[in-house]
Amino acid sequence: MTIHDLPTDRRIGGARLRTVLGVWQRTGPSYVALADALRAAILSGSVPLSTRLPSERELALVLDVSRTTSTAAYGLLRDEGYVASRRGSGTVTTLPDGPGLRVGLPAPGSGDDLVDLSIAAPSAPSSLHAAYLAALDGLPRHLAATGYAPSGIAALREAIADWYVRRGTPTTADQILVTTGAQQAIHLLVSAHAGPGDRVVVEHPTYPHAIEAVRAVGARPVPVPAGVDGLDLDLLESTLRQSAPRLVYLIPDHRNPTGTSLSPSERERVRSLARRHRTMVVGDEVLTELTIEGPAPVSFAGDGGASGQVVSIGSASKSFWGGLRVGWVRGHPDLVARLATIRSHVDMGTPILEQLVVAHLLTAGDETLARRRAELRVRRDHLVGLLRERLPQWQVPIPRGGLALWVDLGTPASSALAAIAPRHGVRVAAGPAFAVDGSFERNLRLPFSEPPEALERAVDGLTLAWDALGTGPITLGAPARMVV
Amino acid sequence: MTIHDLPTDRRIGGARLRTVLGVWQRTGPSYVALADALRAAILSGSVPLSTRLPSERELALVLDVSRTTSTAAYGLLRDEGYVASRRGSGTVTTLPDGPGLRVGLPAPGSGDDLVDLSIAAPSAPSSLHAAYLAALDGLPRHLAATGYAPSGIAALREAIADWYVRRGTPTTADQILVTTGAQQAIHLLVSAHAGPGDRVVVEHPTYPHAIEAVRAVGARPVPVPAGVDGLDLDLLESTLRQSAPRLVYLIPDHRNPTGTSLSPSERERVRSLARRHRTMVVGDEVLTELTIEGPAPVSFAGDGGASGQVVSIGSASKSFWGGLRVGWVRGHPDLVARLATIRSHVDMGTPILEQLVVAHLLTAGDETLARRRAELRVRRDHLVGLLRERLPQWQVPIPRGGLALWVDLGTPASSALAAIAPRHGVRVAAGPAFAVDGSFERNLRLPFSEPPEALERAVDGLTLAWDALGTGPITLGAPARMVV
Repeated sequence: MTIHDLPTDRRIGGARLRTVLGVWQRTGPSYVALADALRAAILSGSVPLSTRLPSERELALVLDVSRTTSTAAYGLLRDEGYVASRRGSGTVTTLPDGPGLRVGLPAPGSGDDLVDLSIAAPSAPSSLHAAYLAALDGLPRHLAATGYAPSGIAALREAIADWYVRRGTPTTADQILVTTGAQQAIHLLVSAHAGPGDRVVVEHPTYPHAIEAVRAVGARPVPVPAGVDGLDLDLLESTLRQSAPRLVYLIPDHRNPTGTSLSPSERERVRSLARRHRTMVVGDEVLTELTIEGPAPVSFAGDGGASGQVVSIGSASKSFWGGLRVGWVRGHPDLVARLATIRSHVDMGTPILEQLVVAHLLTAGDETLARRRAELRVRRDHLVGLLRERLPQWQVPIPRGGLALWVDLGTPASSALAAIAPRHGVRVAAGPAFAVDGSFERNLRLPFSEPPEALERAVDGLTLAWDALGTGPITLGAPARMVV
Repeated sequence: MTIHDLPTDRRIGGARLRTVLGVWQRTGPSYVALADALRAAILSGSVPLSTRLPSERELALVLDVSRTTSTAAYGLLRDEGYVASRRGSGTVTTLPDGPGLRVGLPAPGSGDDLVDLSIAAPSAPSSLHAAYLAALDGLPRHLAATGYAPSGIAALREAIADWYVRRGTPTTADQILVTTGAQQAIHLLVSAHAGPGDRVVVEHPTYPHAIEAVRAVGARPVPVPAGVDGLDLDLLESTLRQSAPRLVYLIPDHRNPTGTSLSPSERERVRSLARRHRTMVVGDEVLTELTIEGPAPVSFAGDGGASGQVVSIGSASKSFWGGLRVGWVRGHPDLVARLATIRSHVDMGTPILEQLVVAHLLTAGDETLARRRAELRVRRDHLVGLLRERLPQWQVPIPRGGLALWVDLGTPASSALAAIAPRHGVRVAAGPAFAVDGSFERNLRLPFSEPPEALERAVDGLTLAWDALGTGPITLGAPARMVV
């Protein structure tokens, strides 16, 4: 195949697009309002990437606007990079921030001077440079070898096993697979257990790239509500009973994006559900070390006994730094062996030096983590204070850990706000980015992992953007669904 | 699902196993000979991993041996770790070297004192430590950010683009996607273009993990012969015409395992075939920098003009060190954007420090490469000399580059040799490991990337193993096929 016939088989018809856009008219030039609504629909995922839009003529017809308006709206979006005109494919949705991102999630760390609150990840701790130097001291031992260690080097697998042991979950190195970040761990577990048509339960809302990993293998994410009151365990139980999912993906501690956690008794119940229904339950513990107040969470894997169904994954990305790209899976040795085999089709291992760095941080990083927690607490409180002062109409629950606030805007304007926020110097991820089905238009995830001054600039920008939406914010119409 | 019902649905019947084993009887204890033959079949992939073997009783029956012999043979293999007895699943094939490897490929760099010639990869150059230090100097600039760069950091994408420009292929940074090694590049390209039932053309023999990546998405590898005379381009052309593959995977320079290369005119023809048949052709240039004699190869991507169908992948693993895990794809910006999106389902990027190291090596690594080439030339000639002296009955073609010799044993004993070689202190990959269909039993890949003294110990071991096979080496029965 050639590039020019790269599949752009997705279309959205005029009538469907009209429904997706809902009531978009408001004061100001029509073409700007139409462009804003279209941009919001693209960013929220209600119109997927690489989808062919109706012609300008058809659009004008179905929306009952002038041809000039539809042409000008497409023109504006084209200038902004939200649509592109491809040879023979008409007008196709795209994104201005370049490759590597999901619709609904702006590009992480693009090289502009916006405050980027689209990604909840801290910058590196000051102690990281020292950790790299320590790792470099340990490197020569490995340089004489080929550098291939598909399951991870022994030093790191043991350090990770010890991390579980310290938290009360007996673990041996052969129960650990080192991965290229937690995302690979999720990908491997989903690939190993789910295929086309299979069901995978996810909390709702949840981490967007987990939803993607499920869809990438053709499986169907089955959402179980996990709102401000936490995960609905009764609904989880009936879902396990009725829809026999292949896998359950949970974030037990400081959930992304809502910030809630499973209580000790809820963890116990989840484990017994896993055993009773013989369903593999994956607990994503990437945020586990980021408890801002209250006791440290108990280990999701419990006593680890006879729990082939309870799998834990972790990562150094949130506790220490995303630039390390080191994650892991803790499970039964048989599972670890199977995942390692699948992994060798995907990549041949994780860089040796990064493994040495993380081994060092897991054993000598307690002080670094203590500083990080203290810092996050200050930043969380700072952002909460700013929001309550500047945007009092927003509901701002206070999480006891993690990296972000899950704000209730009080009106379904999240995608619209995310769409125009960059014009006011801040990038945010709209609520629907964390949804299976385009819901959460009333919610916005706001990370507090940035420095105070950045948070201040961000709130300035959000306030301006909020005002710019006007008294009657854009209505995007009933829950946007993927249009394919 | 629980661990204990992890699928072991593959069985091999007694009759089929007898065919696969062929004539295995020879002097010495029957149970050792039977164990050797079974081990060879497992290592060659003719009996796949996690396959349930016949019961000891059935085995004794079909092979017409005593129950004691079959029981002792299984017992020996169990002790060695080639079979395991699983609750409710009888005797199942497994591998002693732990997770992370393909049947037929022993575990890379296992922690024993064998000479490991199963993997063709050099140890790190002495200059690598300095490269890490240089990268560490450049790191602070990145520590203030979140460390997420799904497509790669600009500095590396530009350094890679320049590498192509220096070789006569105009390239811009937006044509480069940084990956977690070349294996991920292969995985992403296959995932993006091939699905269940699709055909993907591969050279035969070829890099085993490329065959795996094709099978992992349910696609069918279509082998085109690439023996000592190089790739059969007429057959490639008729294959493109007749079986309309979604993708072609080639190693244009110093092919793994045969060591042959495409001539400049052959490259020209491959590119025009790609255009004419609108088929994407992927050239794996991981070995390109390892020319031992003769001129450096011309760029596979040619002038790069209008060649959406010609894609190149590369890696620092063979030129510099496998422990870096940095690879890349060079293609049309649209393709790069699509791959980056798929990649974000697999992992979130490549570690920043490793990217800085490789950016440094690509710009300042010429001297390192020159030393490596000189060193490889010496080691190649040393291994060829040793083999001609000690194992004169083997045919040893001399490659002009790369990392390995593709030896013709003169008899189909490769898997048998690989099976017993570890007892004599050396680990090798049998010919069938590089096959789509279990062929190449006459061939053995012998990397010369190890230091001279290691090569000497390896040839000592191979000589002993060869003698141990006896005058009448084990016949494994005509082309072993995957038994599923």
